[in-house]
Amino acid sequence: MDLHSYASAGVDIARAESFVERLKQRARRAGHDNLWKGAGGYACVVPVSGDQAVALTTDGVGTKLLVACQLNRHDTIGTDLVAMCANDLICVGARPTAFLDYYAVGSLSDEQADCVIQGIIAGCDLAGMILAGGETAEMPGLYGEGHYDLAGFAIGQVSRDGLITGEAIKAGQKLIGVASSGIHSNGLSLARKILAGDRRRLEELLTPTLIYVRPVLSLLEEKDSCVTGIAHITGGGWRNLFRLNGTVGYHIDNPLPVPDIFRQLSACVEEAEMYRTFNMGMGLCLITAGEAGRVVDAFRSHGFAAQQVGLVTDRAKTLTMKDSAVILGD
Amino acid sequence: MDLHSYASAGVDIARAESFVERLKQRARRAGHDNLWKGAGGYACVVPVSGDQAVALTTDGVGTKLLVACQLNRHDTIGTDLVAMCANDLICVGARPTAFLDYYAVGSLSDEQADCVIQGIIAGCDLAGMILAGGETAEMPGLYGEGHYDLAGFAIGQVSRDGLITGEAIKAGQKLIGVASSGIHSNGLSLARKILAGDRRRLEELLTPTLIYVRPVLSLLEEKDSCVTGIAHITGGGWRNLFRLNGTVGYHIDNPLPVPDIFRQLSACVEEAEMYRTFNMGMGLCLITAGEAGRVVDAFRSHGFAAQQVGLVTDRAKTLTMKDSAVILGD
Repeated sequence: MDLHSYASAGVDIARAESFVERLKQRARRAGHDNLWKGAGGYACVVPVSGDQAVALTTDGVGTKLLVACQLNRHDTIGTDLVAMCANDLICVGARPTAFLDYYAVGSLSDEQADCVIQGIIAGCDLAGMILAGGETAEMPGLYGEGHYDLAGFAIGQVSRDGLITGEAIKAGQKLIGVASSGIHSNGLSLARKILAGDRRRLEELLTPTLIYVRPVLSLLEEKDSCVTGIAHITGGGWRNLFRLNGTVGYHIDNPLPVPDIFRQLSACVEEAEMYRTFNMGMGLCLITAGEAGRVVDAFRSHGFAAQQVGLVTDRAKTLTMKDSAVILGD
Repeated sequence: MDLHSYASAGVDIARAESFVERLKQRARRAGHDNLWKGAGGYACVVPVSGDQAVALTTDGVGTKLLVACQLNRHDTIGTDLVAMCANDLICVGARPTAFLDYYAVGSLSDEQADCVIQGIIAGCDLAGMILAGGETAEMPGLYGEGHYDLAGFAIGQVSRDGLITGEAIKAGQKLIGVASSGIHSNGLSLARKILAGDRRRLEELLTPTLIYVRPVLSLLEEKDSCVTGIAHITGGGWRNLFRLNGTVGYHIDNPLPVPDIFRQLSACVEEAEMYRTFNMGMGLCLITAGEAGRVVDAFRSHGFAAQQVGLVTDRAKTLTMKDSAVILGD
């Protein structure tokens, strides 16, 4: 059987990363020095007044949109959009406050638009954000019949003391994994290609991305939370952990259960590619310098499955797994 | 000759407005009371700390994108994107600080992407904003060959004292019009339809939207600036003035020169439709309770053509013009 890869599904990550690098070089000019550095670049942090700053992020839901269009089910894709932004904000320690959507269509359908907005509002409620505004663009000629695109923009508030920079991550600290609800909103181009004929699985792909805001804020608001890093597992899969701190690595010896959908995909995809494309059952990963149980309990009390999954190591930018030959490096 | 209208070009404004109204109803819930009210809803204003707030806005460039694609010229469309956001922020009195872009393509082309980013960076420089981040999404299957979409998100900073609410606009105050560079980024679906075969005019459509940040900030930073309202003339044309204050109207007795491109379009479009679709040569309109000359000079000293164009009247939500039967009402 031919193995699939993310590149074979039409997404050229290397090209995209080289573009983003060039972009960073060009954008790095006067003014950037004033930004605070948040862990992993999940959000940029703009100081506003004294020790208060706002964190900003933008994201989309990728080709999960095309699954929604194919199945004509649009009521939860807006929740994914909010999740992708809100989960990024909490990675730098920010409390999400306001959300804006960009909704572009070829021709506006009341029914579709109402469904999309319903999902956005549900997501904002879960994330504690106000849907503060947005742009609805009608662009005949750019989008095909029934197609649309969605982009989200979210801001959160963070104090200098509350900012998570990732600098305090050290070997020996504990990794807590929090379960995903499935594929979330990354790797869909590859998944769609493999599951194209399987309607039940396509429907499963639409399960909304979990929003981790409430348990994370409840943790961060405790005195001495001991949380030193938070990684939202998005595009790039478990490699997202490498974003937090360039001097450490990770060893996973007690992974969360891998949902069936990833087992089905893994029949067609090389194992390392699975871990660098999908969340593999772990939607969020926290690092704590304190008791693992305290973090685990915070999530469980909010209804999320969580457990200690491993430890921080001193093997820089290397991720190893017990009982697996897969080694991810940067 | 058949007259064209915006609706005949495939853009149903009434449907879009009814959707936005429903959206507002649904989004208006706990939390919205905490937002400050900025004039015209050009940006939403989220308080951060004490008397400091951030203003947020999102916008796109509509089907100006399709002109860029048709002519394969992508070096200034990013400037339009920044302009659409930055000019909205200044309407509430905010100083633009940071910008994020969402750039979605079917398949990433280095050359096209570099051109797009070049325009975004040029725009950010003109607007005094940092390009703080962004999202580049590769979505095979959603966008046609060479097509892409762009959304911009911008934040600015504003103090309680500096917020422009529009409430101080009164009959008798002066209207200052600032020249546009042409069609800017609205009404393109209609313009493209009419000018489809005219390559020179299509090239002219790509003239970048002017960025009015510098002269506006220099004005607002003066003591007692006397500016009571600022309208960015975008979708809806001169009807944008009605957004600022529901109790007043406007009389235009000394309009800015109407650029040739609008004269050509007006051969195919009813006159009132021209004024409610296009900027008709006026990209920004300010209202002052002080001396018109002071506002005019601020723009001229920054190289923008500006003049007093009319007066605020007490005929609520009505716009009249000297020597014209056109009356715009809300």
